[in-house]
Amino acid sequence: MVLRFKCFGMKFTIHNRDGNARAGLLELSRGVIHTPVFMPVGTQGTVKAISPAELEEIGAEIMLCNTYHMYLRPGYEVVEELGGLHDFISWKKPILTDSGGFQVYSLAKLRKIEQNGVHFRSHLDGSAHFIGPEESIEIQKSLGADIIMAFDECPPHPSTYEYTLHSLELTAKWARQCRDIQPQGQALFGIVQGGAFRDLRKLSAGQILNIGFDGYAVGGLSVGEPKEIMHEVIHYITTFLPDQSPRYLMGVGDIVDMLEAVEAGFDMFDCVMPTRNARNGTLFTSTGRLSIKREEYKRDSGPLDPECGCYTCRNFSRAYLRHLFHSREILSMRLNTIHNLYFYFDFFKKMRVAIKDERFGAFKKRWIGIV
Amino acid sequence: MVLRFKCFGMKFTIHNRDGNARAGLLELSRGVIHTPVFMPVGTQGTVKAISPAELEEIGAEIMLCNTYHMYLRPGYEVVEELGGLHDFISWKKPILTDSGGFQVYSLAKLRKIEQNGVHFRSHLDGSAHFIGPEESIEIQKSLGADIIMAFDECPPHPSTYEYTLHSLELTAKWARQCRDIQPQGQALFGIVQGGAFRDLRKLSAGQILNIGFDGYAVGGLSVGEPKEIMHEVIHYITTFLPDQSPRYLMGVGDIVDMLEAVEAGFDMFDCVMPTRNARNGTLFTSTGRLSIKREEYKRDSGPLDPECGCYTCRNFSRAYLRHLFHSREILSMRLNTIHNLYFYFDFFKKMRVAIKDERFGAFKKRWIGIV
Repeated sequence: MVLRFKCFGMKFTIHNRDGNARAGLLELSRGVIHTPVFMPVGTQGTVKAISPAELEEIGAEIMLCNTYHMYLRPGYEVVEELGGLHDFISWKKPILTDSGGFQVYSLAKLRKIEQNGVHFRSHLDGSAHFIGPEESIEIQKSLGADIIMAFDECPPHPSTYEYTLHSLELTAKWARQCRDIQPQGQALFGIVQGGAFRDLRKLSAGQILNIGFDGYAVGGLSVGEPKEIMHEVIHYITTFLPDQSPRYLMGVGDIVDMLEAVEAGFDMFDCVMPTRNARNGTLFTSTGRLSIKREEYKRDSGPLDPECGCYTCRNFSRAYLRHLFHSREILSMRLNTIHNLYFYFDFFKKMRVAIKDERFGAFKKRWIGIV
Repeated sequence: MVLRFKCFGMKFTIHNRDGNARAGLLELSRGVIHTPVFMPVGTQGTVKAISPAELEEIGAEIMLCNTYHMYLRPGYEVVEELGGLHDFISWKKPILTDSGGFQVYSLAKLRKIEQNGVHFRSHLDGSAHFIGPEESIEIQKSLGADIIMAFDECPPHPSTYEYTLHSLELTAKWARQCRDIQPQGQALFGIVQGGAFRDLRKLSAGQILNIGFDGYAVGGLSVGEPKEIMHEVIHYITTFLPDQSPRYLMGVGDIVDMLEAVEAGFDMFDCVMPTRNARNGTLFTSTGRLSIKREEYKRDSGPLDPECGCYTCRNFSRAYLRHLFHSREILSMRLNTIHNLYFYFDFFKKMRVAIKDERFGAFKKRWIGIV
């Protein structure tokens, strides 16, 4: 087994445990992250509808940016020339960039996967591009995120056993290539794939762990598979992931799924769910979801959630939020996003306390009854 | 001449003069307004893209809401039930509502003007409505703005002399009706019409002054007429407006036009220009207008305007603002709006200082060379 390269400046400490669930601290040079952590998604270099100042005020300790989007627009050389992502978007806390792979598979046109990477056409203008492990790391180095991801293949669901097995070869090969050229000062996470197949998940975990990374992510979930399969993989896969490393469940942001994953021992999450739902008028509250467009809120002078302390709940009524939504006002998307993200960060804070107090089981049970 | 009713709580004091230009203080129970003042437009109960907290931080002392829009959605009874506009939209400083007339003429469908008001169909759902002077005051009373406007007819440009003359009869009749039912605690402004015709402007001013209002507005400008005509009317009409009353030039927001109007003795302005331009990527700077979408800003690490102190200029580069604009991000509209409104409020502050220092002429000349 290769000696693990310790990324300068990254330190992960587990402070509390409750069963397999754990609460800890991920320390990076740009800031400290309390885990389990939710990472809001700033697809194109901004968490939609939110300013960096608001994001910090709401409680974000790290955000995610999409390599694929920044690569295509404004271009990674442009971002590099302007001092890297942090300076470009004016966010001084940690950033995680994905490898670009997932978007290449889900957004780009005319994909052709080869041994060294993927040919594809831009979803913006149809222009031809190629990204493989070397290109992905090169781009992520230019962007300068604190945590970067290995370039993988993410098979769609459903995929056959044979396809998934074959795909793991590429993912493992590319992971090693990424690891070999890991830039200094950036933590690099490997990604475990394997779809819905237990033995392939185990195989992939072995391959990725054998290379050795600063953290381990699990990809290829929440891509359309049944919840039972997702939850099964979540609990199964964590038994293979090193206890002392941060574990990141990619793209999973449903409350129930995250409760399941925290219980299994995951530490990091990202998802567009709170922000996208906000823009569609679906809001998370302490008593469940709420659709702000409904007639019943027309004259409702109460706040979205009386138990919430966000700017939206402290200043505006459900009636006004409903009015803004139906009037298609930008402020509607802003206030809803502030609330949903505040809810998510607050929920994670409560999860961490529940782990510390060793009552995560009861906490999980109560929330599954609500959401 | 009827004794002027002094609206409880409104006081207007002129502190400085420079030629016909004046700088003063409009005191209302909800706050003090430094004049000349720019009133940002919150068409549907929000200044587009901006939160009330930001609006206050940028420097707004009063905002405008559109009676027509609030009447149709969410409905003025709803707003009244929720405590009036200030509570509903969470803006504690003064609000001015227009009469609804202008939107009825410019937005609504199938208008039919009668002696007692206007039948029209909603631009939202085609439903049938009727608003006259009584209805307008009733709605504005429910909304509860600090300054309300008389219901008038605003003829389109161009209109014939005969049509405009006939229209003044209605405007004068409706103005008297509004004055007769002015609600307590709300300042009521009369509106002078008369199109591009000097003698009709004079006639209308006489009619409106004869009724007597807390302030005087001039309507029917910036509706498509040539700039020379607008500027001529601006200078001509102010000679008829009482010196001691606030003078409000409705819907005019171009920098050059406002300089002309302040020189003539106007005190109040409203326009969607800074906010609408912001959303379209046109930004006001100390060296002129700038279109942020242009290729030349792609790698420009400098702020929009090095002389500006707004949140946008303090934190973001032109390159990032260009990226947000091309990526159609909500943050683009937000940051641009913050900047343009900050520019407008700062420009008005500079105008007031120039009047105080008795150098408004030079100030005007310099700015006409820039914008």
